[in-house]
Amino acid sequence: MSLIVQKFGGTSVRDAERVMNVARIVTDTFAKGNDVVVVVSAQGDTTDDLIAKADEINPNASKREKDMLLAAGEQISISLLAMAIEKLGYHATSLLGWQAGFETSSAHTSARIKRVSTERIRDALDKKNIVVVAGFQGISRRGDITTLGRGGSDTSAVAIAAAMHADLCQIYTDVEGVYTADPRKVESAQKLKEISYDEMLELATLGAQVLNNRSVEMAKKYNIELEVLSSLTNAPGTIVKEKTRMEKMLISGVAKDTDVARISVIGVPNIPGIAFKMFSKLSAKDINVDIILQSIGHDGKKDISFTVAKSRGKEAVAALEDYMVGHGAKEVLYDDEVAKISIVGAGMESHAGVATKMFEALYDAQINIQMISTSEIKVSVLIDINEADKAVKAIHRKFFD
Amino acid sequence: MSLIVQKFGGTSVRDAERVMNVARIVTDTFAKGNDVVVVVSAQGDTTDDLIAKADEINPNASKREKDMLLAAGEQISISLLAMAIEKLGYHATSLLGWQAGFETSSAHTSARIKRVSTERIRDALDKKNIVVVAGFQGISRRGDITTLGRGGSDTSAVAIAAAMHADLCQIYTDVEGVYTADPRKVESAQKLKEISYDEMLELATLGAQVLNNRSVEMAKKYNIELEVLSSLTNAPGTIVKEKTRMEKMLISGVAKDTDVARISVIGVPNIPGIAFKMFSKLSAKDINVDIILQSIGHDGKKDISFTVAKSRGKEAVAALEDYMVGHGAKEVLYDDEVAKISIVGAGMESHAGVATKMFEALYDAQINIQMISTSEIKVSVLIDINEADKAVKAIHRKFFD
Repeated sequence: MSLIVQKFGGTSVRDAERVMNVARIVTDTFAKGNDVVVVVSAQGDTTDDLIAKADEINPNASKREKDMLLAAGEQISISLLAMAIEKLGYHATSLLGWQAGFETSSAHTSARIKRVSTERIRDALDKKNIVVVAGFQGISRRGDITTLGRGGSDTSAVAIAAAMHADLCQIYTDVEGVYTADPRKVESAQKLKEISYDEMLELATLGAQVLNNRSVEMAKKYNIELEVLSSLTNAPGTIVKEKTRMEKMLISGVAKDTDVARISVIGVPNIPGIAFKMFSKLSAKDINVDIILQSIGHDGKKDISFTVAKSRGKEAVAALEDYMVGHGAKEVLYDDEVAKISIVGAGMESHAGVATKMFEALYDAQINIQMISTSEIKVSVLIDINEADKAVKAIHRKFFD
Repeated sequence: MSLIVQKFGGTSVRDAERVMNVARIVTDTFAKGNDVVVVVSAQGDTTDDLIAKADEINPNASKREKDMLLAAGEQISISLLAMAIEKLGYHATSLLGWQAGFETSSAHTSARIKRVSTERIRDALDKKNIVVVAGFQGISRRGDITTLGRGGSDTSAVAIAAAMHADLCQIYTDVEGVYTADPRKVESAQKLKEISYDEMLELATLGAQVLNNRSVEMAKKYNIELEVLSSLTNAPGTIVKEKTRMEKMLISGVAKDTDVARISVIGVPNIPGIAFKMFSKLSAKDINVDIILQSIGHDGKKDISFTVAKSRGKEAVAALEDYMVGHGAKEVLYDDEVAKISIVGAGMESHAGVATKMFEALYDAQINIQMISTSEIKVSVLIDINEADKAVKAIHRKFFD
């Protein structure tokens, strides 16, 4: 007998039919002799509906009250799922975040899990109940309801799996697993059988939003085996674990990120500390910088280019323009018609020439590379947004066909 | 400085505009130097919507899960109201039933309040917060979410007022107070300035559903002064208290109840114990009997008539028919085209002739009385349902014009 944690997102429980579908998956797992803890998000549009209600009354409401409001979403989905499980003839117990023992920091709307006290979950499992836990939420030391922020339910699931030493943590989504490229765009995209935590982390940050990053980090830390799979098909998914056995595969996937903008500061005086001061202006506004490229410089001048999230692009330019031009730079250029294409793979560490192969694919397709960035298991390039899909296909063909 | 508990029902907070309206009432009370605890029900149709969601999945779900689901309703309304109060520039803290200290029995969907531990409410009040408490809900000794059943939010409000020795408990509804008759039907109906607990209890059972009975009983027990008033007008409401000063008023009101059916068992053998056995059949099915009338009997036979709630009428007939006819009764007659008209007033105790005056009014209006029942502060008659409104007007005119 194993202990299995299963997590279902908002689309998986969006209406009565989908809730019954989840109940069938859960009870099938239980009927095979496993203990089952289910973690659920709020139904489909519930969270958006609740935010709209709040915004109509007070868009600047305190975060404590926002958390109180949003936490009602999972309260609805856990009780409905428990009812669906009862309908199939099994015993179910729904537990809110605080009842399931999620103690968090007091940072409302983005609380961190401090501890999961699983006595109540264990007690219900011992009584042969399927336990349905509200994801995304917990309780602070003051006894206030907190929420974990975006993707929090994934983190809730992994935290329970870690605290209870679960044998497996299954993350059900609306895709069948992790693919070598976006299967909606690249026909020959293949579902991966396995992927390492690090590769998954790189893919998550690259816009292949299958798993929330915090949850993968936590799974890596506590060595929890994850499986990403679909709640709508019966197909096996992708296992995320420490070491994968797929040695011969050079890369795990090709990812596209179009939520990116390039900022270039032209003619920056070549004096010490100028880059530091420039990027401090951005970090003061909590704007994250991704790829940074600095020209070698001549005539006492250099150019500095970097990328930021598109949503923060204009703000970043505004934060820099006066200061940099006031300190001798020629101008600040902005371009949000760009895309970041990345290949990710633990295999890179032991195989030379992976980046070269990627560049060759882009050259064959006559796609111009604007910027390059590399890490141990990742190579990213910045290109024109209109060539993004073509680039992904070309690279994917090079590595997988 | 006074401590005032204010309760708002679902229609008072049904949308953003109404929530802001309630926030204004609450902050006005606070701005006058009072400590304010607000008890809120779920918004307008929320409870019905949640029940519909549950019924679609499993109409026979466990009561524990039903409570978990329904309790989300007040969680939404308290956080929205707290946000509205913040919008007006005041500090607010919303508290769920369990956070506000409502310890209840484990009887899910109809739990009884055992204790209210008000430390957290007091703490928030001390910090100059307006405290917004979720009505209708609490927590059992096992740590499960419970609900109090119909009208539970009134009871929550009175329980807090009792536990905190509040100076006043205001129950805001969509009517301006307690009237001498239904103001939608009787033009000359007058709003009462005061009414006693006992009179209010009689009126509540008579279909003048202004206040939930349990809440009035609790207010009487702990001697909490209630005020029933409208959240939409600024008019003073009706005070409910132990002794009223309106000695000269014979009665407090005329009430109509059309949720009633009459059952007559004809030709019951005149032997000891037959009535007892008959009514045991009904109490075994939890059917409440109201007015009972037994003919004097002749030829060893008598007729027994009584009233039950219309919704249980057919069931009551089915429970009796075979048994009574099998034991010598002639037949069981059923009539749900009846209405119960009642006058209520503490003044009756010291004034003779009140019932006579009522009968005279009905005689003047040529309305036939089918059954009569009296208590110390109430006289009820059963008449044809088609004459109910006419009867109320005639009686009201007799006593109040």
